[in-house]
Amino acid sequence: MAGNTLGTLFAVTNFGESHGPAIGCVIDGCPPGMALAESDIQPELDRRRPGSSAFVTQRQEADRVEILSGVYQGQTTGTPICLLIRNTDQRSKDYSDIAQAFRPGHADYAYYRKYGIRDPRGGGRSSARLTAPTVAAGAVARKWLRERHGTQFQGCMTQLGELPIAFESWDYVAQNPFFAPVADTAALENYMRALRKSGDSCGARLRVTARNMPAGLGEPLYDRLDADIAHAMMGLNAVKGVEIGDGFACVTQKGSEHGDAMFPGEAGRPRFASNHAGGILGGISTGQDLEVSVAIKPTSSILIPRPSINTAGEAVELITKGRHDPCVGIRATPILEALLALVVMDHAMHQQARATA
Amino acid sequence: MAGNTLGTLFAVTNFGESHGPAIGCVIDGCPPGMALAESDIQPELDRRRPGSSAFVTQRQEADRVEILSGVYQGQTTGTPICLLIRNTDQRSKDYSDIAQAFRPGHADYAYYRKYGIRDPRGGGRSSARLTAPTVAAGAVARKWLRERHGTQFQGCMTQLGELPIAFESWDYVAQNPFFAPVADTAALENYMRALRKSGDSCGARLRVTARNMPAGLGEPLYDRLDADIAHAMMGLNAVKGVEIGDGFACVTQKGSEHGDAMFPGEAGRPRFASNHAGGILGGISTGQDLEVSVAIKPTSSILIPRPSINTAGEAVELITKGRHDPCVGIRATPILEALLALVVMDHAMHQQARATA
Amino acid sequence: MAGNTLGTLFAVTNFGESHGPAIGCVIDGCPPGMALAESDIQPELDRRRPGSSAFVTQRQEADRVEILSGVYQGQTTGTPICLLIRNTDQRSKDYSDIAQAFRPGHADYAYYRKYGIRDPRGGGRSSARLTAPTVAAGAVARKWLRERHGTQFQGCMTQLGELPIAFESWDYVAQNPFFAPVADTAALENYMRALRKSGDSCGARLRVTARNMPAGLGEPLYDRLDADIAHAMMGLNAVKGVEIGDGFACVTQKGSEHGDAMFPGEAGRPRFASNHAGGILGGISTGQDLEVSVAIKPTSSILIPRPSINTAGEAVELITKGRHDPCVGIRATPILEALLALVVMDHAMHQQARATA
Amino acid sequence: MAGNTLGTLFAVTNFGESHGPAIGCVIDGCPPGMALAESDIQPELDRRRPGSSAFVTQRQEADRVEILSGVYQGQTTGTPICLLIRNTDQRSKDYSDIAQAFRPGHADYAYYRKYGIRDPRGGGRSSARLTAPTVAAGAVARKWLRERHGTQFQGCMTQLGELPIAFESWDYVAQNPFFAPVADTAALENYMRALRKSGDSCGARLRVTARNMPAGLGEPLYDRLDADIAHAMMGLNAVKGVEIGDGFACVTQKGSEHGDAMFPGEAGRPRFASNHAGGILGGISTGQDLEVSVAIKPTSSILIPRPSINTAGEAVELITKGRHDPCVGIRATPILEALLALVVMDHAMHQQARATA
Repeated sequence: MAGNTLGTLFAVTNFGESHGPAIGCVIDGCPPGMALAESDIQPELDRRRPGSSAFVTQRQEADRVEILSGVYQGQTTGTPICLLIRNTDQRSKDYSDIAQAFRPGHADYAYYRKYGIRDPRGGGRSSARLTAPTVAAGAVARKWLRERHGTQFQGCMTQLGELPIAFESWDYVAQNPFFAPVADTAALENYMRALRKSGDSCGARLRVTARNMPAGLGEPLYDRLDADIAHAMMGLNAVKGVEIGDGFACVTQKGSEHGDAMFPGEAGRPRFASNHAGGILGGISTGQDLEVSVAIKPTSSILIPRPSINTAGEAVELITKGRHDPCVGIRATPILEALLALVVMDHAMHQQARATA
Repeated sequence: MAGNTLGTLFAVTNFGESHGPAIGCVIDGCPPGMALAESDIQPELDRRRPGSSAFVTQRQEADRVEILSGVYQGQTTGTPICLLIRNTDQRSKDYSDIAQAFRPGHADYAYYRKYGIRDPRGGGRSSARLTAPTVAAGAVARKWLRERHGTQFQGCMTQLGELPIAFESWDYVAQNPFFAPVADTAALENYMRALRKSGDSCGARLRVTARNMPAGLGEPLYDRLDADIAHAMMGLNAVKGVEIGDGFACVTQKGSEHGDAMFPGEAGRPRFASNHAGGILGGISTGQDLEVSVAIKPTSSILIPRPSINTAGEAVELITKGRHDPCVGIRATPILEALLALVVMDHAMHQQARATA
Repeated sequence: MAGNTLGTLFAVTNFGESHGPAIGCVIDGCPPGMALAESDIQPELDRRRPGSSAFVTQRQEADRVEILSGVYQGQTTGTPICLLIRNTDQRSKDYSDIAQAFRPGHADYAYYRKYGIRDPRGGGRSSARLTAPTVAAGAVARKWLRERHGTQFQGCMTQLGELPIAFESWDYVAQNPFFAPVADTAALENYMRALRKSGDSCGARLRVTARNMPAGLGEPLYDRLDADIAHAMMGLNAVKGVEIGDGFACVTQKGSEHGDAMFPGEAGRPRFASNHAGGILGGISTGQDLEVSVAIKPTSSILIPRPSINTAGEAVELITKGRHDPCVGIRATPILEALLALVVMDHAMHQQARATA
Repeated sequence: MAGNTLGTLFAVTNFGESHGPAIGCVIDGCPPGMALAESDIQPELDRRRPGSSAFVTQRQEADRVEILSGVYQGQTTGTPICLLIRNTDQRSKDYSDIAQAFRPGHADYAYYRKYGIRDPRGGGRSSARLTAPTVAAGAVARKWLRERHGTQFQGCMTQLGELPIAFESWDYVAQNPFFAPVADTAALENYMRALRKSGDSCGARLRVTARNMPAGLGEPLYDRLDADIAHAMMGLNAVKGVEIGDGFACVTQKGSEHGDAMFPGEAGRPRFASNHAGGILGGISTGQDLEVSVAIKPTSSILIPRPSINTAGEAVELITKGRHDPCVGIRATPILEALLALVVMDHAMHQQARATA
């Protein structure tokens, strides 16, 4: 693979740069006959959109999605769906300082070594802006999975920097800009205001789930469902850790504690006493809820001066001005939901391909 | 993809079941002209081999690898390399109890839902035995990367159940059956003896690294180097969490702390002051050491009775007799090294494909 | 694969419908650092463009290509290149007759059986218009191959319906709308005028070549260079036959006649006495010119009434009004060149990936 | 792709060399729950087997297939199926002459340029012997398609060198070593005897069909059904041309003649008046019989001296002694059937993956 495609049967090919004319993706493999319009996609993009609160980048982008192909008279035709999002608020002058130098902790240096050339405007291809097409494609997968299997994807923030966030209710997630499952976000707001003032950035921990999961998804060796989830999550900017179910907590668990006991349930299906596995055993979905957690690192673009080098190999001191998210985790919840949906969609199609009934 | 292939340019297709006649893999894409013999592969298989200490399964398998193709007069020809390992110590009667019931925490139930049929002998395809071909293929990748780039892969155990293992030296890793980087493993041995006596199992945490890494490996969107590492690691039996660099510790770090400062180094290359990133920025290798950690869950096959159901949906109580690893993490180090090498190899070939110089 | 991507390392994903807002493609995997502008691509699109002579469809499309990504300051960056072409001259009313009926020899019926839904406007996805993005992508591959290897792609028409066209010179190809290698095209013009008058359509035979070919391209089993050329050519609308080298003439040849004798040539390379093989032996390029021929069937959209059925399974009689090419072979030469270049490009990158030197 | 895998959902990875210890393949993606034993595969291998008549190579190989994995208690489990065939009759001394020289028309030179190294024993990887695993895998696909869709694959020889073979009946095909659909093969036998005596070789033309085809198979752009058939056929040793339906005869047809008229048939399906299309329109199967023709070149290994060069670039004269097929077309029929079945199987699974019902 050339790298910019996620999935093989529901294959999403992503293109674009932060400050180019447009970003977008092509979905190849969407089943035909599903009602689809821009209005099915736009709400998910709006959830991820920059400029929507004081705690995220102030770049103003409407992120209007345009369906260029693959839909006829309001229905998917089974042919590739191109989704286009025009960039509108590019301020390339903001980035002139870092064109010849490498921000510590940023993709700058790695791109330089890989390509010998890079588009420095807004991070170019490495910008978190490129997650918008992923979210758009995810909306298509989510619609299909919801209509066919009743599957629902939902995420939330569980820690903001040093502040753990105790889960209260999914109902609160849509009511605050942090996607936090709590009624009162005053502490989170204060934390972010202090962070902003310091010119620094912070990490976050997020959780994403899938309910009403079809069982039997995932290939047992190499392309397991958990492996592909890990691939999708770790493929997201700034993610440095992924857990399925109990994750790293498994290390100190005993087998007698970890294995989820099964009791007779409805329709010959088991009732699981717990979900330490996070819905996946042997790489294959069991029908339990998927439970995934990710660690997001602090943004590298900060106002605090950092020692670095430039393309000539000389020492420089860098401050990153411009518009940046002080915590990219804040807007990451819709992206994680989209990524999880895209992985499940691809595996659902694979499982359907082999079905013998 | 059909699921059992790892990599696209250095593509390893794995086949076999725990108690079938043989297991193995086909490596498609190995560059021609590299000296290769069974003796280059066997030592890695010996490191992973069962029955080698009191703390692992007592199944006796020589794990002799046979090169069936792709090598002529001691050199790779560029054509597919089939590596075959005959199974010799199958005792299928051990598994008759669990043929119609599902072990809690085991792949049994998921396979049943996916395929409607499963080979219950020794876990069939879900057995950790299927990591042997991965290790064999990894040995080929490691040889190429070592000879061409000087890259070295090394792993160790960093926690055994509740026991953290403080790093002392890589030199100790080869001297004990735990792959523990410590001189004195008495505590680990005692822990395992008590665990054995209790009939239970435990988890583990492992670390795996790559030194002398080529810079520029990894596609920045979706098929990032870290994404593919996460895919490979989470695709290994029992792995429930993956971290790159500081991993989940990033959540509480500030950007000013996390971003690895760069200073002028040798040959125009930077000298990094730290390695919080674990050798990858923006999904692309920087040339720093790769640092990866994984969480391994406790084995589901234990001697303590557990409530479950059978294929008829009835309640049963299960004890798993037979030969099992009480901690699959103990033998996992060579597998993690192999997986990391396979991912790096595939990306090294991708990078070479696009090289313009 | 989901079907609409050609190539794996230089991967072109095509999207769009004949009468949708736009058509285009994403090239994933283009090497970085190559100068690229719309002006490198537009001339190839102009060669394929409709409305350019009396012998092709009168649809007026400027076919202006827009580079949306992957190029910075006039150079490829190694990231995906999205090429967009807006549709401008859609007359959907022309196609209302055939929305519920199936033209004999047309994709109508097959699409209906595959998808249950189809976009009937201008043939939707099955329109030859979708070859424009292929031509655009091919221009990028051609530039890279020309600059790096000096490889040149050139095609021509060798038969128009019942009229064989004797090869005179490549110089004439650009001087007539048939891409015919002859000075005098009066016979071809008369043939087409008579065909137009009859309301019928005709087939054609075309030849496409590559000169200055790198040797060693192609994987010997399954993904041979000739196999991938056949795939690309037969994947083009209306193509029903593909030949490499002497093709079907080989059937009556003897081995002593067919095998191209080799004599010592320059720089240790052979001088071949002939090129019956068409530049490929054992699926791998020898460095000789590639020689490929294709058969193109007559267009199914004709003004002569034909018996068919509609979606209700009832008998109907169909005439296809609207704007159509009476011989799609006339505009096919630039497409064949592009397809051959795309296949060679992908294999050149594969070969580079495994190079040991 | 690394080259040696055919198909993506029913993926067959081929390995081995003519004179190595074994050849074989891994089928990844076979649906679970199908009865399968060696006895389902062996008859197809026996049809292709060398040494079975005076008109083919006298190498004696039993070609016994061994199922190493993926089958439990006589049923496919959905996991990879490894099929192994041991080589038994290697006489490597036969090939010492050509180890340092290149046979005109043979893969020798191309391999040398690609890999810098080659296994000269019996043609190594380029030997037609490597079609045996393809035939074995094809037998598995054929069984699934026959049981599920009633699809049947059948081929025959339609021309041997200068001798056209008029079709009499499919019934005769199994009764002669040429797979010729004629009662009397005396002329063919005489032709081959004269050819043998002359030390030369000849080409052939073959036809392969599929009956009871599912409609709707094939992706319309690039990965069309006809494109993938062409890829599979041209990927076979010695094939230089492929036709679908009327193939090159289309060139001189008019649209009014070529397009297959449709009349109301049974169950709302059309009754086609003819099958010029060969069962595929717009790259998608219509449900009509597939009709494919291939041109096979004369074998390059002949007893007539030919001028060539060696690895030092010096002129040599080559005679190829040893055991060779004077016309590889004679044994090609079962291989073409297998290839067609593998392509149809892969597309059938793709179509099932997207089914909405």
